[in-house]
Amino acid sequence: MTTPWNHRCSLRMQSMRGSAIRELLKLTENPEIISFGGGMPAPEVFPVEAFRAAADRVLDRHGRNALQYSATEGYRPLREWIVRQMARYGIESAPENVLITSGSQQALDLLGTLLINPGDLILTERPTYLGALQAWRAYQARFVSVPVDDDGLQVDLLEEALCAGPKFMYILPNFQNPGGVTLSLERRHKLIEFSDRYGVPIIEDDPYGELRYEGDHLPPLVVVDAERCKSRPARAIEPGYYDESQPRNGNGRAYMRGNVIYLSTFSKTLAPGLRLAWMVAPVEVIQRCVVAKQGMDLHTATLNQAIAHEILTGGEEGEGFLMGHVRLIRDVYRERRDVMLTAMRRHFPPGVTWTEPTGGLFLWVTLPDYLDATELLKKALEQKVAYVPGVAFSPDGSERNSLRLNFSFCTPEKINIGIQRLGDVFSQAIEDHAVEMARSFEPVLQAA
Amino acid sequence: MTTPWNHRCSLRMQSMRGSAIRELLKLTENPEIISFGGGMPAPEVFPVEAFRAAADRVLDRHGRNALQYSATEGYRPLREWIVRQMARYGIESAPENVLITSGSQQALDLLGTLLINPGDLILTERPTYLGALQAWRAYQARFVSVPVDDDGLQVDLLEEALCAGPKFMYILPNFQNPGGVTLSLERRHKLIEFSDRYGVPIIEDDPYGELRYEGDHLPPLVVVDAERCKSRPARAIEPGYYDESQPRNGNGRAYMRGNVIYLSTFSKTLAPGLRLAWMVAPVEVIQRCVVAKQGMDLHTATLNQAIAHEILTGGEEGEGFLMGHVRLIRDVYRERRDVMLTAMRRHFPPGVTWTEPTGGLFLWVTLPDYLDATELLKKALEQKVAYVPGVAFSPDGSERNSLRLNFSFCTPEKINIGIQRLGDVFSQAIEDHAVEMARSFEPVLQAA
Repeated sequence: MTTPWNHRCSLRMQSMRGSAIRELLKLTENPEIISFGGGMPAPEVFPVEAFRAAADRVLDRHGRNALQYSATEGYRPLREWIVRQMARYGIESAPENVLITSGSQQALDLLGTLLINPGDLILTERPTYLGALQAWRAYQARFVSVPVDDDGLQVDLLEEALCAGPKFMYILPNFQNPGGVTLSLERRHKLIEFSDRYGVPIIEDDPYGELRYEGDHLPPLVVVDAERCKSRPARAIEPGYYDESQPRNGNGRAYMRGNVIYLSTFSKTLAPGLRLAWMVAPVEVIQRCVVAKQGMDLHTATLNQAIAHEILTGGEEGEGFLMGHVRLIRDVYRERRDVMLTAMRRHFPPGVTWTEPTGGLFLWVTLPDYLDATELLKKALEQKVAYVPGVAFSPDGSERNSLRLNFSFCTPEKINIGIQRLGDVFSQAIEDHAVEMARSFEPVLQAA
Repeated sequence: MTTPWNHRCSLRMQSMRGSAIRELLKLTENPEIISFGGGMPAPEVFPVEAFRAAADRVLDRHGRNALQYSATEGYRPLREWIVRQMARYGIESAPENVLITSGSQQALDLLGTLLINPGDLILTERPTYLGALQAWRAYQARFVSVPVDDDGLQVDLLEEALCAGPKFMYILPNFQNPGGVTLSLERRHKLIEFSDRYGVPIIEDDPYGELRYEGDHLPPLVVVDAERCKSRPARAIEPGYYDESQPRNGNGRAYMRGNVIYLSTFSKTLAPGLRLAWMVAPVEVIQRCVVAKQGMDLHTATLNQAIAHEILTGGEEGEGFLMGHVRLIRDVYRERRDVMLTAMRRHFPPGVTWTEPTGGLFLWVTLPDYLDATELLKKALEQKVAYVPGVAFSPDGSERNSLRLNFSFCTPEKINIGIQRLGDVFSQAIEDHAVEMARSFEPVLQAA
């Protein structure tokens, strides 16, 4: 730490800390450790052969364009595909509403640049996605949070947090990372109503929406908001949806002008190694993000966008590819979730509870409140099993006795072994605590 | 402009402006316009077939890894290749000194995060790379600049600028973008001496170093600095090179601990559509940049890194691929530069001067000082030819009568036609000015 750069660090950089948890999790690179820590898709479900064929066709047919600089907004045919795909879920947009980002993480960073002044307050769920906290802490944001339960954000506790004056809300409505919980339809309507009443817009992060293993698809917040806005006349400055003063796209639809910015990604449905995600937002938000993105990385890799577009449209199944592939992913992950839940029922001691997600990649475990999941991680690593302690997902340092488990990455065999090991660690910790408690009473008993 | 997001913009975002010049240059998407505006490589030199073969091998042999999440630092084999490649140019480093970035633009953004507090002063060449100005203006940096001449940065004018107290210097020593000029060996030594004496470190941006069309390779600043540091004992906090307290890498070399951070890219030697570049820096700088990059995009696309590594090492020519391919690029660009210079001599009117670069992609044209290159761009576009006005590269709004021409992108035929058109525009403007001058004297003459 003696180079001339060290004492030139910006205040912003000084506020960023390498995470101690991340250091612990580096140990999981050891192949002997069964890791429920990452958020990685199962490599077995990657459509490798389809990628190989798509890369071959792209480089064969328009290789020069795929290797050249391209527009900051993203590859137009891919943005058009996204518009068609979003429409299947009721999201009305035009390509001008879509920005391709280098992973969802970049979308979060862009929104940080766009919206956050140092000290600004952001409303999140508790727990919430650790990458959002990391991105926005770099902009010196503060957080106010509302807890989730099995039906997602507890909207009946929302008003108090809204009264603190947050600039926007950050919500993961489907199979939330890390909680695994899903916001109920009734709460979606209430949330949008509060958003409108208090004038606090929403960033909706939906990386897992398509990975539902049972039950019915629920409308995204951006759709609930649009329906609400359409049902009454627009005011001058307000969370409206249609802006008749804006140009219309080729389909004759007005551009989106909503109270909700919607984020999604190809990381869970195609492959995370592409770093391809997207933002759907009002045109003015996209335009400003384009200016900011120019300074960040000029544009997302052309080659990856072209390959993704080819795989999504150009194979034998045409535009049916993704639907078929997602069905395969669902089958694999549903089985792994079931294996994990069954093993937990068998091996986890009384006093430990968990969520039972209907989709996504994660579930959330709550230990007795006298246990510290970060301390226990060291013992778990000794037993060659890993997770992420809950405090990493906490905007306020709470969640010390909880943890996140990923069920998508490990094979069913490893899930069984890993959960058994974790159960032993938890049982031992509970027993140790009981012994310690008993000991603390010994002098009392002896004195009696 | 009536959505709830608009009035929530951060101060940082409000300080970023969409560039009027960029808007003008959007017109160059019209294929009828001959554009010397971009900084694009010739698509004819992209090794498309090698990319196709490499993508095929990567996806065939280790597709699952190439599609998965990967380390923020970058793909280790690619970092090891970079260490070997840098060593050919005298840069001693270890993989721990190398960070893969999503294009050089991201390296500039990362260094902005790492180093710049609002109001900090940065010393640049004048003119300098527009992407650096854009990245660092977003951090509310201020600039002090030193003009370049045919031998690069005028180091005899450096001390006055250093006395203003810049946090670091940003230097493009080889075939500078936009000037096309190269810093002479003598000046490299003087620059490093000043850097040491004033304690102001350097960011060396070297995207074009390998694209030299004649003359001898000059040592990078990072090497000149290292040699200077090695020749005398290290102080406690100082711009030293070897830090004996740091661990050593596998090759037994000490990690770099320099006064110069070195940036380069695959955009000009392989393809810009990959968005692959790298930073060579002291370990502590890399570690901090890794923390910042996690919040920005988690990591650069795994697939692209694996394909780049495969193309650089895995084909028939093995590690000889790049050298052979760069030779081809040099031949193509040398010819285009020569065609452009010949056409300029023929078609540009007296009073217009230009640089004669020995490498790179750009040259710099200076018009008579009564002409405004931004105004003239409109006339050039009417004649279906484009360039970037010099003011875009100016940290202080100067360079109004200059402009940048790119000679790598257009074919020789188009270069000839485009330069002829530009010559006509410049000649007409000079003539118009002469007529206007004459007219302004008319009343005087009539009165006499």
